Amino acid sequence: MEIRRLQIGLRMSQAVVHGSVVYLAGQVADDPSQDVAGQTRQVLAAIDALLAQVGTDKTRILLAQIYLADISTFAQMNSVWDAWVSAGHTPARATVEAKLAGPQWKVEIVVTAALP
Amino acid sequence: MEIRRLQIGLRMSQAVVHGSVVYLAGQVADDPSQDVAGQTRQVLAAIDALLAQVGTDKTRILLAQIYLADISTFAQMNSVWDAWVSAGHTPARATVEAKLAGPQWKVEIVVTAALP
Amino acid sequence: MEIRRLQIGLRMSQAVVHGSVVYLAGQVADDPSQDVAGQTRQVLAAIDALLAQVGTDKTRILLAQIYLADISTFAQMNSVWDAWVSAGHTPARATVEAKLAGPQWKVEIVVTAALP
Repeated sequence: MEIRRLQIGLRMSQAVVHGSVVYLAGQVADDPSQDVAGQTRQVLAAIDALLAQVGTDKTRILLAQIYLADISTFAQMNSVWDAWVSAGHTPARATVEAKLAGPQWKVEIVVTAALP
Repeated sequence: MEIRRLQIGLRMSQAVVHGSVVYLAGQVADDPSQDVAGQTRQVLAAIDALLAQVGTDKTRILLAQIYLADISTFAQMNSVWDAWVSAGHTPARATVEAKLAGPQWKVEIVVTAALP
Repeated sequence: MEIRRLQIGLRMSQAVVHGSVVYLAGQVADDPSQDVAGQTRQVLAAIDALLAQVGTDKTRILLAQIYLADISTFAQMNSVWDAWVSAGHTPARATVEAKLAGPQWKVEIVVTAALP
């Protein structure tokens, strides 16, 4: 079964397709000057864009792992998440606190999704 | 390939079936007044129930990601885990410390399993 | 669909094969006296060995979840990682800080890979 990779970097690829499943790299904000709500919006937009590039969308997300640098921002992250998810198609999800690769990042989301 | 979701909420679904794999949401204790052993028992019972709802069981767990709010409770969590897993069918597993969505929770487990 | 497990322990198995996907347990260093670069080398060698045992290799890794006990060692871990990954076949990846099961461990990596 063939593997297809998108945005192949020297360290990681941003998306890896195998069979009917796509694994996305952990997404963080391009502009980390924003607060956790703004960063969540950027992260979800990046996820939308990657899913679109492999021909799927947020109605087909299977699992989302969310890392928050500060768990006290849980409600702020959720306010953006709840408005973004597709009603009736919400994924399995887990959210924990973890320091991210740089202190400027407040949220990172790792998504596994199905192709159509 | 069709996706089937169980206990579909506005924020997440508790189980998402795709092909022959089910992705469970991170499970935490319903009664967080208990200690880590008691909470682990509740979490594993919740996992048993969700797996049963999609027609599978703990002999077919592929991967378990365990988050402990305090890694010093590793042995207490394991005492419950070791008694629960199915001999000869133990899953791949990783356990790390992470603060969970609320301070009342001491353990959260994220399971991926195969359907029969 | 059959499940095949390798190095089946009482607590976990080191590798679980389902369909064309293998899920590895979180790998840590056998010799934790080494620094994060040395431990990363050991972890990646353990992953190479497990992948070989199921007939695949690092060119077919789909997703790697990396936990660092101290995120300030990110660059040191990456120096080993970047030299190890297969050019053109880099996996999706996410790296966060988390305390591991014992204080002697500085890095743990959880890999999902495809069979050939």
